[in-house]
Amino acid sequence: MATLDDIAKMAGVSATTVSRVINNYGSLSEKTKAKVFAAMRELNYQPNSLARSLKGKKTQLIGVILPGVGNPFFGQMVQEIEDQLFKKGYRIILCNAGDDSEKERDYLRMLMANRVDGIISGSHNLGIEEYQKVGLPIISFDRYLSNNIPIVSSDNFQGGRLAAQTLMMSGSKMMEIITGANRPNSPTSNRLKGFKEILGKNDVEFNTSEIDFSSSPIIKSLKIKEILSNKKVDGIFCTDDLTALLVMQQAKDLGISIPEDLKLIGYDGTNFIQNYHPELTTIMQPIADIVTMMIDLLLKRIDDPDCKLESNYTLPVKLITGATTI
Amino acid sequence: MATLDDIAKMAGVSATTVSRVINNYGSLSEKTKAKVFAAMRELNYQPNSLARSLKGKKTQLIGVILPGVGNPFFGQMVQEIEDQLFKKGYRIILCNAGDDSEKERDYLRMLMANRVDGIISGSHNLGIEEYQKVGLPIISFDRYLSNNIPIVSSDNFQGGRLAAQTLMMSGSKMMEIITGANRPNSPTSNRLKGFKEILGKNDVEFNTSEIDFSSSPIIKSLKIKEILSNKKVDGIFCTDDLTALLVMQQAKDLGISIPEDLKLIGYDGTNFIQNYHPELTTIMQPIADIVTMMIDLLLKRIDDPDCKLESNYTLPVKLITGATTI
Repeated sequence: MATLDDIAKMAGVSATTVSRVINNYGSLSEKTKAKVFAAMRELNYQPNSLARSLKGKKTQLIGVILPGVGNPFFGQMVQEIEDQLFKKGYRIILCNAGDDSEKERDYLRMLMANRVDGIISGSHNLGIEEYQKVGLPIISFDRYLSNNIPIVSSDNFQGGRLAAQTLMMSGSKMMEIITGANRPNSPTSNRLKGFKEILGKNDVEFNTSEIDFSSSPIIKSLKIKEILSNKKVDGIFCTDDLTALLVMQQAKDLGISIPEDLKLIGYDGTNFIQNYHPELTTIMQPIADIVTMMIDLLLKRIDDPDCKLESNYTLPVKLITGATTI
Repeated sequence: MATLDDIAKMAGVSATTVSRVINNYGSLSEKTKAKVFAAMRELNYQPNSLARSLKGKKTQLIGVILPGVGNPFFGQMVQEIEDQLFKKGYRIILCNAGDDSEKERDYLRMLMANRVDGIISGSHNLGIEEYQKVGLPIISFDRYLSNNIPIVSSDNFQGGRLAAQTLMMSGSKMMEIITGANRPNSPTSNRLKGFKEILGKNDVEFNTSEIDFSSSPIIKSLKIKEILSNKKVDGIFCTDDLTALLVMQQAKDLGISIPEDLKLIGYDGTNFIQNYHPELTTIMQPIADIVTMMIDLLLKRIDDPDCKLESNYTLPVKLITGATTI
């Protein structure tokens, strides 16, 4: 098995430098990092397994990479992950990757070293290759990362269908979908597919507006205002609840009454939305069950890195009916 | 210096058991834990310093103990802490303590072992003694924990004064304060003191309702409904924004118009509230600056455990005027 010294020799740097690169510690040039990572790949160096075999024990730490806990959906998810893992004797190292792919990459490097037993990731900045080479047990939430990384999600397709059926039953004739920019192979794009399938079968008119998930709420609000001002929309499906809150704000400003003039349905159904916006009809993702499933799978992989797991685990969603579609 | 074996001998258990207690790993009886902790205290055992001196380096990990990231205020704070610490080469271990003092105690024990270089705590389940014996650099947010643990907070007193002045200027005559149950020596109780000082000087009538911070939103809503139904209140100060959202909901249900019949002001002013509830007048805490200050102090203490710090660091608040007081 390759050692730090082998890598140092091949990369033409000191063993200390190699250790710093692996642990992402101290200031290092991109050139040095690149040389060390190239040598690690060449020698198939597995810092984590090595460290473990040397130490003979696990760290009881799990890395959690998510877009950001400032968003109540991920806030609730992290709280649930931390709570459930704590009861099993694990602690979490939290990374809010936002849309910063360099930060996510740095965390992955750091987690690849001997710091965590496994990773839960719900982020989507990096390409497949970067997750493929991590060499640690990983479970993904709702994002395709690599062929051997299981994805846990709620039933996005059924959620989209439910949203369409609800808007149709509430009498909407001219619908708008407001969604983030989805990657084609991302499970969340199934929300759109499910929605469109129902509308297609029933010959209902609709339009799709993509607004990037990471846009600021002000930018999103401007686009929503445009949608509401220019069109005869009477039903809107937002693929997340926060965007639905912005629609409510803009509609109020424009004198459009919900649900009289406009029906509205969101997606996610966090505790926060249920508590503080019970008026919003939404599709609820079962966050606690999703987390239970992710942790169960991750601990299986930690126990036995070669255990066979499915590619996809899909949990049911629920319609929560509020006043915005009645 | 005491070793694991010394403690094991004194406690009458194996060294493995001592290690498990320190690392909070595996199932252990409360009796066993108590014996081990008693021996650790007796022998003045410092697992962290020992581990460090053995390893000769820091872990670059910081423990963050907060009530819960499901709340947008703490969600934003954790995101800010993680982001700023990441840029300085540190990662965070997150603990959502909620109102679970046993969990907070378990985390403290675990962090006392060799896992973190320091702690940021904004939780308040435990008594002074428990934080006094931790033996790690700690900085507190907005809570008195122990004489030698610096507190960083925003200017709660000035925030309370600003809230009172704003409600008075908006024409309120009969005010209600809705607040969590505050410990008398907690900095947050200064919000009330500042508010009451202004009202006292101006002979304005007011009433105070305490609703426990950890109550469910449904329980809070019932109490708010009672307040709104039974009294001629025309101005409400909530010492947190989420409670103010519940007031808005209940007022709507009861046909009370805001701001026509009732003026409302909250407290916290998170990004979330500013983005999704710009109508709410609120007192904004400078979360980013609070975090910068906490990290600055913590890193000083980590560098030099004996460095002199103040007991209190107070940062200014800002009034954000929305439609609820105009």
